[in-house]
Amino acid sequence: MDILHRVGAKASPETVYTALTTLDGLADWWTEDVKGSADEGGVVAFRFAQGGFDMKVLETRPAEAVVWEVVDGPEEWIGTHIRFDLKQEDGFTIVLFRHEGWREEVEFMSHCSTKWATFLMSLKRLAETGTGEPAPRDVQVSNWH
Amino acid sequence: MDILHRVGAKASPETVYTALTTLDGLADWWTEDVKGSADEGGVVAFRFAQGGFDMKVLETRPAEAVVWEVVDGPEEWIGTHIRFDLKQEDGFTIVLFRHEGWREEVEFMSHCSTKWATFLMSLKRLAETGTGEPAPRDVQVSNWH
Repeated sequence: MDILHRVGAKASPETVYTALTTLDGLADWWTEDVKGSADEGGVVAFRFAQGGFDMKVLETRPAEAVVWEVVDGPEEWIGTHIRFDLKQEDGFTIVLFRHEGWREEVEFMSHCSTKWATFLMSLKRLAETGTGEPAPRDVQVSNWH
Repeated sequence: MDILHRVGAKASPETVYTALTTLDGLADWWTEDVKGSADEGGVVAFRFAQGGFDMKVLETRPAEAVVWEVVDGPEEWIGTHIRFDLKQEDGFTIVLFRHEGWREEVEFMSHCSTKWATFLMSLKRLAETGTGEPAPRDVQVSNWH
């Protein structure tokens, strides 16, 4: 069971790729509290008020793909993979997003699906305007934040 | 394969239920071009610049659940079901959303997942503030709109 999303930013693939593969870029759309190494083989620690995730960077292909494995965080996330595949279409950089390998369709998966959408819209805004909405300034979707 | 989302609105279950089961309510968060009957057994025609969907209303349980079956629209949608389950938690009305029965994980499914998230955020805003972002004033997520 996977969470899927598709967003398109009026920006170059290089701009989107940089936002996915540098600590400064990740801090500008997902969470300001990010540490570690975003290079292939590195581990990135993302922290939020409610906890966080450690991601091992499995693959980085410039302007094409970024793949992470969740190595620490909520039990439901551990072992799952997160993929960002990039392509160009109609002057947009399309991000095909996939959070794959969920073991059960739990309510938390529904929450994460909606939160991913708002964070991917934050990535789109960052790429297009230079300003995203990372935590702790992220869009609140419910009582679970 | 299902699209899942979870949003919570600081509003009563009745307010959210009305937005899901009346033409005026649906016009205020999904698309302004909506016709038909939103009562159980009715068919609602939702139209957008790019096309639209006809939904048969399979079930309406006040302040608890609304279920539609897609009877016309894009081929990938026909026969799929859309469920809104409502519950109260921490002063929020939680909407557990499910668009179920996709036959393949196509790119259009990823697009629809992101669009559903932005429309559910529109439903949340409508319930909380009285103003949503229905088509044609909806949030653009990519070149596919």
